[in-house]
Amino acid sequence: MEPVLESLLADAPLSQENERPPRLMAAMRHAVLAGGKRLRPILVMEVAELFGRQDDGVLTAAAALEFIHCYSLVHDDLPAMDDDDLRRGRPTVHKAFDEATAILAGDALLTLAFDAITADPVHEDPAVRLVLTRELSRAAGIGGMAGGQMLDLESESRARSEQEIRTLQAMKTGALLRYACRAGALLANAHEGDVDRLTRFGEIIGLAFQLADDLLDVEASAETTGKATGKDAAAGKATLVGLHGVDATRAELAKLQAEATALLQPFGEKAKPLIELADFISNRNH
Amino acid sequence: MEPVLESLLADAPLSQENERPPRLMAAMRHAVLAGGKRLRPILVMEVAELFGRQDDGVLTAAAALEFIHCYSLVHDDLPAMDDDDLRRGRPTVHKAFDEATAILAGDALLTLAFDAITADPVHEDPAVRLVLTRELSRAAGIGGMAGGQMLDLESESRARSEQEIRTLQAMKTGALLRYACRAGALLANAHEGDVDRLTRFGEIIGLAFQLADDLLDVEASAETTGKATGKDAAAGKATLVGLHGVDATRAELAKLQAEATALLQPFGEKAKPLIELADFISNRNH
Repeated sequence: MEPVLESLLADAPLSQENERPPRLMAAMRHAVLAGGKRLRPILVMEVAELFGRQDDGVLTAAAALEFIHCYSLVHDDLPAMDDDDLRRGRPTVHKAFDEATAILAGDALLTLAFDAITADPVHEDPAVRLVLTRELSRAAGIGGMAGGQMLDLESESRARSEQEIRTLQAMKTGALLRYACRAGALLANAHEGDVDRLTRFGEIIGLAFQLADDLLDVEASAETTGKATGKDAAAGKATLVGLHGVDATRAELAKLQAEATALLQPFGEKAKPLIELADFISNRNH
Repeated sequence: MEPVLESLLADAPLSQENERPPRLMAAMRHAVLAGGKRLRPILVMEVAELFGRQDDGVLTAAAALEFIHCYSLVHDDLPAMDDDDLRRGRPTVHKAFDEATAILAGDALLTLAFDAITADPVHEDPAVRLVLTRELSRAAGIGGMAGGQMLDLESESRARSEQEIRTLQAMKTGALLRYACRAGALLANAHEGDVDRLTRFGEIIGLAFQLADDLLDVEASAETTGKATGKDAAAGKATLVGLHGVDATRAELAKLQAEATALLQPFGEKAKPLIELADFISNRNH
């Protein structure tokens, strides 16, 4: 993953004979090349491989998704949003640079994602690339990630029902994880039924990811996660762990893990890496 | 233009069964439906009409470009950037709402643009819609508008050569105006030579727009423009007017106007609306 991210950043396309401002490039690299888990691009690649596709075009689509994820972290970390100084154990972009640069670096990464996803190697059929582009926009936009972040910020100031929490989480983190799995299947020309199956797998991954994240916030220390913890409760943010407690949340996670495994059962041994990913997501401690 | 912007905002597509957060929708509407000049979408539409196309698909592509323009204004107005309280005589988005909402509204508008530009009615050929999508990303990204804004922020802290100023302006405001004209020609299946001609026309419009803007900043009152003026000099921002003076700038504007008119001469009477637009841009007082 890292070489593709590096080269797409280094070769960030220009409008005409214009230049790449070095400070903006540096901030974008700081945001992207920070050794994240690369969960979303790995999902794209593993799902595509499940259906027999594994090449640079898949990597490019996966990188587009990672750019979207990284932009969202840069903007979420801003003082006006979650106000985080630390991300993956390093200073956040607005701390390493400044706020204006962080806003622009996020904007430029979001924009670059829509260049990468349209690249010729992504899929030979322009119509498929258009679908991938449009669905990426919807997963990231007002009905997806950006809308979820808005609901999350609002939830600091008022109580939320379980359904409201589930909706905001499906939007804020679920939409991109769902897209990752769906995109992998579309990239590899999977049959419609299989696209639906992997889409559902992505939704389960999204739910499990959020539950595990909420558990981590309650249980882990800042040392393990490399970021500040216990912030949800301090900020008055409603979570499912807060509503149902740690034990019930662990039980729900186990159920999701079983559902994920059952969904991929028809693919036999080939699905092992994806099932291991689902396990990792449910049980991660960072 | 307004009904299309309204309906694309109202029908902002959802990822799945998710919701549109009302506060984010309101902030996006505040940013877009504020009675701007609509210069970029009008250029798209007038150029497409020059080559005989005039329908809802053109309007949708034009709206995508306006969303990009409006997102950039919302982010540029933020305290960490240009710190403007007033835009078109109304409170800026972060003043009417708050900073976090303004950041997210900008992000969501940028994202929505890439949904709109991929819409089926934009062009019957998916390959053309992909080109329009990719070029929109490049005009808006690190080698275009976002990169230009970075250079502009940096120019507050050090002197810039004439070439540097021209590059930053070609990126910050030029790239989208160039794209507007180019997209209009591509939408209407203009021949390659005509696409190049209209691309050059867009570049001239971009130069003229920036020179007229710099002149306005020096000359106009806050009353006429509906925004704070004299800010460039106060911020120590280098402009071509600052380098060459008002008279030389007026002379360059007249030359650009003549070049724009000459470029469209082969189209005869049909090009009149575009030539009038070029004149308006060169001579506007707000």
